[in-house]
Amino acid sequence: MTFADILGYSAGFVTSLTFLPQVIKTWKDKSARDISLLMFIIAAVNEVMWIGYGVLLSPANWVIILTNLLVLSMSLTMIVLKLRYT
Amino acid sequence: MTFADILGYSAGFVTSLTFLPQVIKTWKDKSARDISLLMFIIAAVNEVMWIGYGVLLSPANWVIILTNLLVLSMSLTMIVLKLRYT
Repeated sequence: MTFADILGYSAGFVTSLTFLPQVIKTWKDKSARDISLLMFIIAAVNEVMWIGYGVLLSPANWVIILTNLLVLSMSLTMIVLKLRYT
Repeated sequence: MTFADILGYSAGFVTSLTFLPQVIKTWKDKSARDISLLMFIIAAVNEVMWIGYGVLLSPANWVIILTNLLVLSMSLTMIVLKLRYT
């Protein structure tokens, strides 16, 4: 495994965690007025696109699929929190 | 070009635009209290990782490099806006 491979896998791992601090903050603060609903709708649609891409590759790319399922779950959580706490 | 290719390129294009609605909303509202600073710091570090990965591939992958430069510029903008408008 090259340094580029390690950097790529690490970057993918960090990507999957990017939305987590926002989910935790909004959950705790119960306030989402400053959050862009559109951003998380675009993110959710985008993650479905990435999951579709991962499924269509042969062989299917499970790193893409699982990473994006995780980020999709956080985007959908943010959409619910935004609608609830605005 | 297969349907998977088209879906992958489209997904990459949408990814590069994900943060734009948040930048525009925060710029207009001049309020960022509900925004997670940590989320955009993680995102910025992550985009530098992806740019490094794109540079290290041979040949260098300009789609990864340019997409992440664009998202990095928006993440850094959000960090500045968050620090300014909290």
